[in-house]
Amino acid sequence: MNLALENPKLLSLAAGFTDNGTLPVAAVQEAMTALVRSPGEPEYLQYGTNRGRPGLRRQLSQRLCHLEPELDPAQVNEGCFVTNGSQQALYLAMQVLCEPGDIVLVDRPSYFVYLEMLTALGVRALSLPVDSTGVIDGAALDALLAALVARGEGSRVKAVYFVSYFSNPSARSLGEGEKTVIANALAAAGLWVPAVEDAAYRELYFHQPHPAASILTLPAWERFPRLYLSTLTKPFATGLKIGFGVCTDADWLARMLHVKGHHDFGSANFNQAVLERVLADGGLESQLAFIRPTYERKMRALHEALEAEGLRSLAWEWKEPAGGLYLWLRGPRALDTGMASEFCRACIEAGVLYVPGDLCFGESPPRNFARLSFGVLGEADLREAARRFVGVARHFSEQSA
Amino acid sequence: MNLALENPKLLSLAAGFTDNGTLPVAAVQEAMTALVRSPGEPEYLQYGTNRGRPGLRRQLSQRLCHLEPELDPAQVNEGCFVTNGSQQALYLAMQVLCEPGDIVLVDRPSYFVYLEMLTALGVRALSLPVDSTGVIDGAALDALLAALVARGEGSRVKAVYFVSYFSNPSARSLGEGEKTVIANALAAAGLWVPAVEDAAYRELYFHQPHPAASILTLPAWERFPRLYLSTLTKPFATGLKIGFGVCTDADWLARMLHVKGHHDFGSANFNQAVLERVLADGGLESQLAFIRPTYERKMRALHEALEAEGLRSLAWEWKEPAGGLYLWLRGPRALDTGMASEFCRACIEAGVLYVPGDLCFGESPPRNFARLSFGVLGEADLREAARRFVGVARHFSEQSA
Repeated sequence: MNLALENPKLLSLAAGFTDNGTLPVAAVQEAMTALVRSPGEPEYLQYGTNRGRPGLRRQLSQRLCHLEPELDPAQVNEGCFVTNGSQQALYLAMQVLCEPGDIVLVDRPSYFVYLEMLTALGVRALSLPVDSTGVIDGAALDALLAALVARGEGSRVKAVYFVSYFSNPSARSLGEGEKTVIANALAAAGLWVPAVEDAAYRELYFHQPHPAASILTLPAWERFPRLYLSTLTKPFATGLKIGFGVCTDADWLARMLHVKGHHDFGSANFNQAVLERVLADGGLESQLAFIRPTYERKMRALHEALEAEGLRSLAWEWKEPAGGLYLWLRGPRALDTGMASEFCRACIEAGVLYVPGDLCFGESPPRNFARLSFGVLGEADLREAARRFVGVARHFSEQSA
Repeated sequence: MNLALENPKLLSLAAGFTDNGTLPVAAVQEAMTALVRSPGEPEYLQYGTNRGRPGLRRQLSQRLCHLEPELDPAQVNEGCFVTNGSQQALYLAMQVLCEPGDIVLVDRPSYFVYLEMLTALGVRALSLPVDSTGVIDGAALDALLAALVARGEGSRVKAVYFVSYFSNPSARSLGEGEKTVIANALAAAGLWVPAVEDAAYRELYFHQPHPAASILTLPAWERFPRLYLSTLTKPFATGLKIGFGVCTDADWLARMLHVKGHHDFGSANFNQAVLERVLADGGLESQLAFIRPTYERKMRALHEALEAEGLRSLAWEWKEPAGGLYLWLRGPRALDTGMASEFCRACIEAGVLYVPGDLCFGESPPRNFARLSFGVLGEADLREAARRFVGVARHFSEQSA
């Protein structure tokens, strides 16, 4: 990512950044001006609280209840806390749950920064089994959990994690059925472990929200401690770095907040005040209404360029996503697209970066996947990046022929 | 602190907050306007880098070299990284150095949030011995370290930490001689452990900087891995939450940045962009020129009110500080001012909060100290808070007589 930032000739399909051209400059400036003009002391430039601004938390809770009307705003607010991006909430969650040698169940593929974090904490990521179409395989999951328990490793399983809406990296969303299958399998195995649902991309749909309810609402999850994660960075401004969590378990929440008190005793209050104002003024809705078609256009530009350049004819496969920032490509079975591969080096030499898919798996990573982000580049650059990427793919296809 | 924030009738001499009346609203707004008008893309609302904005780090490094001209700006910049307040840097430093059961040497008294963090990490804080005037006692330190080594615990000592300028809580600054005594004692014991110098209050002097050089410059520290911590929160705006560290050891720095990548992969870029602009425009200097006499007046209001109310005649002692945000009071030897004391409860009932001194010691805390902050309240409230505090002190003095 640093390499991509420093070399202007490289086109990055790797960075999960958003589009500079869509950043909400006017909304942030208006919020700032409104803050300056508001009566009273400029407390927005003062320390806030460890848990986050009450007014912001209240609005975030209401917003979530708008997405899922069965939720109770007061109860959601009770479990809501603000962090430095949802990444910090994810870190806190794992820091207080896991010891080295523990196991966390993760989606397959999963968010690679999270997987790296688990490795650094000495925690083993074990994939939730999926079928050949990427759907959670309940029977295989039952078997996996039964085997874990039989080996005496059940008590080492400390959490389950998945990115459930327009996922990073797969752009897939989990259906309610799939989420319920996971809960039922855990329950059947007696593993009532904390569950983390990462909904960072939930609002970044192109046309309509993915219809699945979250684990906060689904009945099968009711008896599990749950943490729902979301963020205002990706949907509004990554530079403000404000995420949040909603935790259903008072003890888990207290432990996370205790550690957050030591990390930084509260995320930047100013950013929270700006976002509180933006939310109150409807600025997030306007921004979302603006970026949804923008990202769809960019997705389409990349997707169509890859098709037009002939990538499908080289035995690469991918689906057109309905939201998010990524295309998730499967290359020919024999091709290695991994971090250390010739293919990856050839792409960098050709001036195009992607995220090697092997980074996105808990164990036994297949080596022929690639995550392509259409978040950062404009449409023309996306087309040029696609041209370069397919050029390399063609070269490797011809070599192997 | 939360109690203080929520009950408007309580006057807080506890919170280490700054004064809402002095917050740099105009400077922040100007910086924001300048950012909006600057040519090019609004990258300030985009993710930054894990390590922090290059332009901000460069200016912070130059500023430090201005305070200590023997330093090389390029070398300082090499070790400089930006965090969510210096608190996060402190956390990262300890997280990568310490295991449960380890020992860290700390000043006496020391920063209580740091001590709490060590406790949470399972690390034992052991005080650097001081004489009756609070000055580092070299002979006692030699004896302490020799005893540690003799007991086979030398390898458990993982760091040394001190707040060296207008300290929290004591308002004392360490002399160069004292810092050198610490380094020499560690070297003599063969304990070449990483040193953390917390300079959060260095710029908050009333009339002139404390003359002591930091451990980045002092020759006795040259062979130690060192981390110098400072911040833009206390001297500029706590609500922006930007601190920084300068680390002399490439490996230690890399390990901290690795973990920071998992905590949040970079502090809010927007705040850094605002501060970069503020620094470039001289806004920090103006702000400091404004708040230094303000804090001196407030210190004097509290100090003089405590004297006028007769606290000295009740056998309380304290020194008038030359900077910082705190008065550090020693009560009568037999008085318990601790967290769980009758005195503390009586103060809350009388409507005044302070930080019980027993929180500020690594081990064997004396129970008759109190930290009083003059950061938050205006002068009239400081006088009223002093009246309440002395009222309680008088009551306890009469009871014990």
